[in-house]
Amino acid sequence: MQFNIVYVGNIKDKYLAEAAAEYEKRLGAYGAVKNTELKEEKITDGASAAEIAAAIEREGERILAALPQKSCKIALCVEGREMSSEEYAAFLGKVKDASAQITFIVGGAFGLSEKVKRACDSRISISKMTFTHRLARVLLLEQTYRAMNILAGGKYHK
Amino acid sequence: MQFNIVYVGNIKDKYLAEAAAEYEKRLGAYGAVKNTELKEEKITDGASAAEIAAAIEREGERILAALPQKSCKIALCVEGREMSSEEYAAFLGKVKDASAQITFIVGGAFGLSEKVKRACDSRISISKMTFTHRLARVLLLEQTYRAMNILAGGKYHK
Repeated sequence: MQFNIVYVGNIKDKYLAEAAAEYEKRLGAYGAVKNTELKEEKITDGASAAEIAAAIEREGERILAALPQKSCKIALCVEGREMSSEEYAAFLGKVKDASAQITFIVGGAFGLSEKVKRACDSRISISKMTFTHRLARVLLLEQTYRAMNILAGGKYHK
Repeated sequence: MQFNIVYVGNIKDKYLAEAAAEYEKRLGAYGAVKNTELKEEKITDGASAAEIAAAIEREGERILAALPQKSCKIALCVEGREMSSEEYAAFLGKVKDASAQITFIVGGAFGLSEKVKRACDSRISISKMTFTHRLARVLLLEQTYRAMNILAGGKYHK
């Protein structure tokens, strides 16, 4: 099993980088983890809606170019499907049976372009609440590790 | 405004402690933050359902003894109300108008006792997914900072 994580923007905060590294290491017990970090567009505070939309499109083009062909592609977005951890494990179990590669896509500060969402097989949401995309990557890694541990009959999830 | 956070178990992982400290510092711009860390029961891997229930009760007694009298009390639990960040901000805005103190309660590894939940004014849930209680505290702090920033017309939430 290979887990690809395609995301926009580096993790600036040391504690979030360390948290991501820890859950990535744990997830590594269940397959190879490959990170693809893409450049984030600089968006100034006073940016117009059109400027933001253009930045999302440019980030989207970079994401589309980075997506592996043969892989189940899952976009993280707020309108995606919400699942319990057990449901997420069952969902990943099915993905695992269908594809040797799974690619998660985490957008930048303003989310994903429609083109990227349409290119994905599924959309999932971690929470109704909005977290920074940097924190979202940490949560995705933790939940994916938890799901794989559930599938393996492990004890992390009680 | 005073924010009390009553939680069971210390934060073992350095990166989560640093993340909590960072969001706590930011939340500090909107009021005093007071942490009450309570001892976690030791539950062995082979513990029976009865042993786990007894441990939850004992942790619950400690929580009830630590709750301030005059405060709006909010329990974090998976069956609680899920809100978007904007809805959570509106919710906190109402709490803020009704009470000078707000107390969040984050249980231990196995959650909160019924007694504790009944003693609370509201139950909220961050996600359908299960996170460790240590990560849940970090998420609560981030969302509460985000909510206060939304109420203040700040730019953290885009």
